[in-house]
Amino acid sequence: MADEQEGGKSKKQLKKEAKEKEKAAKREEHRGAAKTGNEAQTQKDEDDCSVGKYGGLGLIQSGERPAREYLHVRDLGAAQSNKTVWIRARLHTSRAKGKQCFVVLRQQESTIQALAQVDQNTSKQMVKFLSNISKESIVEVEGVVSAVERKIESCTQQDVELHVRQAFLVSAAKPQLPLQVEDASRRDDPSDAEGLQIRVNQDTRLDNRVLDLRTPANQAIFRLEAAVCRLFRDLLTAQGFTEIHTPKIISAASEGGANVFTVSYFKGQAYLAQSPQLYKQMAIAADFDKVFTVGAVFRAEDSNTHRHLTEFVGLDLEMAFKWHYHEVLDVIGNTFTQLFRGLQEQCATEIAAVGQQYPVEPFVFLDPPLRLTFRQGLDLLAEAGVKLNDEDDLSTPDEKLLGRLVKKKYNTDFYILDKFPLAVRPFYTMPDPLDKKWSNSYDMFMRGEEILSGAQRIHDPEFLTERAQHHDIDLSKIAAYIDAFRYGCPPHAGGGIGLERVRPQEADTLKGRCNWRKRKRSHR
Amino acid sequence: MADEQEGGKSKKQLKKEAKEKEKAAKREEHRGAAKTGNEAQTQKDEDDCSVGKYGGLGLIQSGERPAREYLHVRDLGAAQSNKTVWIRARLHTSRAKGKQCFVVLRQQESTIQALAQVDQNTSKQMVKFLSNISKESIVEVEGVVSAVERKIESCTQQDVELHVRQAFLVSAAKPQLPLQVEDASRRDDPSDAEGLQIRVNQDTRLDNRVLDLRTPANQAIFRLEAAVCRLFRDLLTAQGFTEIHTPKIISAASEGGANVFTVSYFKGQAYLAQSPQLYKQMAIAADFDKVFTVGAVFRAEDSNTHRHLTEFVGLDLEMAFKWHYHEVLDVIGNTFTQLFRGLQEQCATEIAAVGQQYPVEPFVFLDPPLRLTFRQGLDLLAEAGVKLNDEDDLSTPDEKLLGRLVKKKYNTDFYILDKFPLAVRPFYTMPDPLDKKWSNSYDMFMRGEEILSGAQRIHDPEFLTERAQHHDIDLSKIAAYIDAFRYGCPPHAGGGIGLERVRPQEADTLKGRCNWRKRKRSHR
Repeated sequence: MADEQEGGKSKKQLKKEAKEKEKAAKREEHRGAAKTGNEAQTQKDEDDCSVGKYGGLGLIQSGERPAREYLHVRDLGAAQSNKTVWIRARLHTSRAKGKQCFVVLRQQESTIQALAQVDQNTSKQMVKFLSNISKESIVEVEGVVSAVERKIESCTQQDVELHVRQAFLVSAAKPQLPLQVEDASRRDDPSDAEGLQIRVNQDTRLDNRVLDLRTPANQAIFRLEAAVCRLFRDLLTAQGFTEIHTPKIISAASEGGANVFTVSYFKGQAYLAQSPQLYKQMAIAADFDKVFTVGAVFRAEDSNTHRHLTEFVGLDLEMAFKWHYHEVLDVIGNTFTQLFRGLQEQCATEIAAVGQQYPVEPFVFLDPPLRLTFRQGLDLLAEAGVKLNDEDDLSTPDEKLLGRLVKKKYNTDFYILDKFPLAVRPFYTMPDPLDKKWSNSYDMFMRGEEILSGAQRIHDPEFLTERAQHHDIDLSKIAAYIDAFRYGCPPHAGGGIGLERVRPQEADTLKGRCNWRKRKRSHR
Repeated sequence: MADEQEGGKSKKQLKKEAKEKEKAAKREEHRGAAKTGNEAQTQKDEDDCSVGKYGGLGLIQSGERPAREYLHVRDLGAAQSNKTVWIRARLHTSRAKGKQCFVVLRQQESTIQALAQVDQNTSKQMVKFLSNISKESIVEVEGVVSAVERKIESCTQQDVELHVRQAFLVSAAKPQLPLQVEDASRRDDPSDAEGLQIRVNQDTRLDNRVLDLRTPANQAIFRLEAAVCRLFRDLLTAQGFTEIHTPKIISAASEGGANVFTVSYFKGQAYLAQSPQLYKQMAIAADFDKVFTVGAVFRAEDSNTHRHLTEFVGLDLEMAFKWHYHEVLDVIGNTFTQLFRGLQEQCATEIAAVGQQYPVEPFVFLDPPLRLTFRQGLDLLAEAGVKLNDEDDLSTPDEKLLGRLVKKKYNTDFYILDKFPLAVRPFYTMPDPLDKKWSNSYDMFMRGEEILSGAQRIHDPEFLTERAQHHDIDLSKIAAYIDAFRYGCPPHAGGGIGLERVRPQEADTLKGRCNWRKRKRSHR
């Protein structure tokens, strides 16, 4: 049978198989060359006193599990002086000098200097091996922690260096890198003409995101974003909110139909949700009382500004109230205050790391947060010479200016603008009870940039229908939305935050955005 | 100018505006009829001693914010006896009987009996008003908490009832409901023939999800899902994981191209991500060390089984390790054990509420979790008469049977199956170092159902290329994926969990799923 099968194969197939076998054999050989650190087989050389103490580890395929303990570079300091430790880290930079090789090892945001030099225990072959390792490769090093007399300014661990005893290659980087992590980490300082020239441009960064994300600032930005989400969820959960997950593929373009992505859905068509609006309101009508959701939101907006993304992370919340939407506004405002405080307390290192690359003034805020009416905002702008009508929305430059005026007058980078004109808000926004020109809606701003938009929603199906008609919305398309309120619904309000806009160190640091999504735009 | 504009309007426009004005006037009238509870205006009737103590509140538009305190129904008990309290709740059921009206008020999962009867302080008009309120409407009631002699079996609050002093309508439900919340909450008991007849079928539930979600079991399922996500994130964060957010719209159908949804992306085409696989691995190559992500995952699978959804919530994690993927397997296994324990400790009420409607045996598990090899699993099946070859994957019935055999032998509803055949896993799975028939991959099971699939991934770009070719994958489509490993990448492993499959009370309770997504399927 086996022969028959063999015989049935085409020459091409046989050739392919032979080639594969050959490759596999080579790989086995390569792998066998060095099983684990201690047993690593290096060139047998009579003169080499370091045999077995350096070399390639080969492919780590979970063949064994030696009981070796590792320290993180960030934990190495004077306390470990004269101790022998194992670390696994990136080779950040390397400089060979006669019988010595200085390398900087980097593990996430931390760096330490390491030194290998030819001596009675260290062969010249081993020093050469280390000096030949390409930058960004992952190495495993055993070394003695040694206090240094003069601080090593170029590393985060400035009081000690590592005297290398063993050095192995875990995973090699291509020798030619499309960008240097050192350059990508350079301080964003317009007065540094030399620095400007060797900075890495945004396209190169985004095309090589795996390298770009290794900079201390990007490492910190990701951790800050994780912290924003964690604090948002924890603070709301502590206040009785329930997390929900809302559909992303939806059957009707419920919010008017503009800027919606279309999905081929088997034999039909569907759409990507522009927000969890309908679903969080359904959850309120279904008695969940207070809900939040963190998830992807899609907007088919063909705008190449730093304020627009076709896909972003929305942090949305919705809450039933008894009498007044300010019950909700208070909760949201105080949640932000606590969130800012949480970031300052829990993420001082990360905030400093971002500030290191992108200098910015510390973020200031009031507790409780400053709340102005839209009308008061217009007055401030008018004092500064910008006259707007009551029913105009704020343009991006108006927002920026208002941010500066508020900062100057109240010394806060965060504030709430309440009671927007009804005309500039969506159809489901509850009008003000006394003056139909205004509405029960609000925006929140950080450094003059809108980060949250929210409102009391109309919870009465008849009134909602009336407002939709006023906005010329096709009622058949929003029937499911309106029907959600036909079986009794408490008054409620909420809001949505764009994660990518919330960052205490934001300002103009957009080059540092944790946005690996640019690729998608190139589709157009 | 104003006149000119007016003159420029078409007759149709003017007519529309006049109609709108009329409607608005009517609404104002309606709203004015009853501003707040205490001032509520009811029919002026000389005989009515309850004037102002009942009626409709009108549309709550945030006109005022009275300082009224409310208790939650779940907090009403003997401790509040003889106290006068305000509550806002749903009218769950209602029964008028001569000069009395008994209602059951429901707030989320809790219910209490309330009684209004004609007496010197309560007019017959008021009792009639209450008895006319439609079920599922939201009411605001002031009442005296009164201990009862005999437990009220039909309510969650069994020791007290509420003697109504004031009663207002907050939001009316349509008098005709498409389903009764009482029926939708009925126990899933096959021996209850009568109950079976009045149970609500799944289509009716999904078409009226806002009502269906009001049942105690569904309220609990949502809270349990929130708890699963919270525990997953908290447990991993405590172990040094960083949360990331991965793109959902992607430029290439990177995982082979089957079962991918296509999105119109401006003038081009894009795809919905089938998993965060590439991105969490990129995060590892970018030095984040340990990452997790919770978010929407899309699969264009045209399978109408309870195991398939076109969109679900994925809880994914990925972790760099030093020598052996079991370092990761240990972390995942222990995270599950802690997660189960956390649910049992923090969500006993919710687990009981689900069990009330969908009876099921308590969930049992071992600590540390049971780990079997795939080969051992095959042996167990063989003992039970099901012979499979080494390189066969498990079918759903095999999995179910194996779950029962494991439960019988080891008394655990959770276990890990390690070392799957290489042939049944994706191309990026690391082969076993000793026997190429097997791979460094694993599944985890709850009650015989796979809930997590994971593996060590190939972190070497050349070997990855070779394996992709072996699987006949078009290398041009996965170039970005392979390139992510060219600048040094630590060995790593991870896994992905489908949230909708993780639930200690799962078993056959799929009618109770928190799946309001069925609507999408009807597209086909």
